[in-house]
Amino acid sequence: MKESPLFWPAELKGDRLMVLDETRLPEELYYIAVTNTDEAVKVIREMKTRAFGQFLVVLNTFLLVLQKKYAFSQELFEELRKTAEALNSSRPTFPFSEVTSIVIGWANQALAQQVEIKPFLEKNIQGFLMGIKMKRLQRVQEIANLINDGDSVLTHCNVSGELAMASQLCREQNKDIHFFATETRPYFQGSKLTCWELKEAEANVTLVADNAVGSLMMDGLIDKVIIGSDRSCANGDIVNKIGSYQIAVLAKEFKIPLFALTQPSNKIPKGEDIPIELRNPEELLMFQGKRIVPEKTQGFYPGFDIVPGELIEKQIMIDPSGR
Amino acid sequence: MKESPLFWPAELKGDRLMVLDETRLPEELYYIAVTNTDEAVKVIREMKTRAFGQFLVVLNTFLLVLQKKYAFSQELFEELRKTAEALNSSRPTFPFSEVTSIVIGWANQALAQQVEIKPFLEKNIQGFLMGIKMKRLQRVQEIANLINDGDSVLTHCNVSGELAMASQLCREQNKDIHFFATETRPYFQGSKLTCWELKEAEANVTLVADNAVGSLMMDGLIDKVIIGSDRSCANGDIVNKIGSYQIAVLAKEFKIPLFALTQPSNKIPKGEDIPIELRNPEELLMFQGKRIVPEKTQGFYPGFDIVPGELIEKQIMIDPSGR
Repeated sequence: MKESPLFWPAELKGDRLMVLDETRLPEELYYIAVTNTDEAVKVIREMKTRAFGQFLVVLNTFLLVLQKKYAFSQELFEELRKTAEALNSSRPTFPFSEVTSIVIGWANQALAQQVEIKPFLEKNIQGFLMGIKMKRLQRVQEIANLINDGDSVLTHCNVSGELAMASQLCREQNKDIHFFATETRPYFQGSKLTCWELKEAEANVTLVADNAVGSLMMDGLIDKVIIGSDRSCANGDIVNKIGSYQIAVLAKEFKIPLFALTQPSNKIPKGEDIPIELRNPEELLMFQGKRIVPEKTQGFYPGFDIVPGELIEKQIMIDPSGR
Repeated sequence: MKESPLFWPAELKGDRLMVLDETRLPEELYYIAVTNTDEAVKVIREMKTRAFGQFLVVLNTFLLVLQKKYAFSQELFEELRKTAEALNSSRPTFPFSEVTSIVIGWANQALAQQVEIKPFLEKNIQGFLMGIKMKRLQRVQEIANLINDGDSVLTHCNVSGELAMASQLCREQNKDIHFFATETRPYFQGSKLTCWELKEAEANVTLVADNAVGSLMMDGLIDKVIIGSDRSCANGDIVNKIGSYQIAVLAKEFKIPLFALTQPSNKIPKGEDIPIELRNPEELLMFQGKRIVPEKTQGFYPGFDIVPGELIEKQIMIDPSGR
């Protein structure tokens, strides 16, 4: 099984964190070198990386901070705390604080036990990352097991490598399957990322407009829906890329099972408790540097929506904290 | 009330039919000069004009044919018959034959009654066009009456001037209303046509991605949905721009009334009997001359979908044949 670049889109190389620039795909496989917290916040805020990539950037940014020289442990601790704060506020919908608080917890632990912060944190963060990689590979297997020979699977936005890798497992299992990918306006993650990585994995994929989902289902062309999730809640709700909710309503209408790849986030009771990021409407109004609407048109661009738990057949969960 | 250019997008000027090039909007108000049947078929097939514009092109093309010199009535009749055939096959989803057969019927009538074809047809076609204009203006009034003060109205694709003109009536009636227009991928009719003509009419309009419809409804931001229709059926089904069906399912989910502007087409029993045009997937894969997906990606682009009659609160009908 070949690993999709989107499966692990950020990796530390010496003193630079190399982050896959997803906005340049599929034209080129380009990595941005991130060397400090400000640059890390920037790649997240400008959506150069997204979904799982953000999570990797957050954890690796602490490794970058640890590489710098600090006269006192307290000075390093203060720097880690500031880093956590900056990352937490980079994009509103994401629970970055759930991850950064784990790291700060380890740093506190090191201070309390009077062990050196740097090696203790490095070991913990690297172990944490390794554990997640293992679990994600297991989930690829679980996804492949969900898909039957002959299935036509609809996906929305991009699930960071796992679907592309599951498609390879399906082929090894002699399952003949087909994917429909939505374009996922306004960012075109489906056109640019999902189609690209599924093609790279030699999967059979067809691109459709977000508008075509109902029509495909009415024509009996979809057997399963598999989407990711940016947040999940204690009551089973998830928050995912805008458009996920309407796909889920349509899937219910046609009794098509919808599977969601999730990470637990039990601190949040329900979907409504999660702030939905309102992104810059320019992303709707401009395309490739050109304005596609009349001057002064206003746009409204919520980046995510809530899929109520009752519309989800099954959540395929990874717990990054190892619980 | 100012007339939107989309309300009457094709008009005969001497020996040239001036057709509004909707693909150049909103950048410029450009009219293509059509002088013969081949050119008429081309503007329809290439979607330079669409919806009501196509209907105007079809009728006016006969007026162009009538302007040419023919030695015998039979020769003119043969030319009219060929014109009808060419127009009928220009795009599959449209019932052009229902319109062209009326014209051919008049020509037959002239032949049978031994009156000169040319003046008889010109008078009939011009009267027909005038009648439709009157009825469409009445429908603008009906649309305005549907909308209450404070309403937020969602529309999809473009309804050729009527909504923009209804918004002006609403303002004259001191109704404070707001529109949400979907982008309407892949052709962006919402971004390019609907936003443009609503802005020109000084209406309050916000553009959203097609993906945002479910989220807007969940947040209680939509009171009514108003869409057009490309075809309608005896059982109340309509066929309209791809994406209409899923909007209708969502509207039902939220008990939001959906109104459709229709033309009767009682010859067709139900939606499934209407062939759905599969447009060139390049329209999904390219944007402004640039490929936005990886090489060899395949796309699937049905141009329309079926909205079952039971999802439509009320049809606001115009019968172009005057029945």
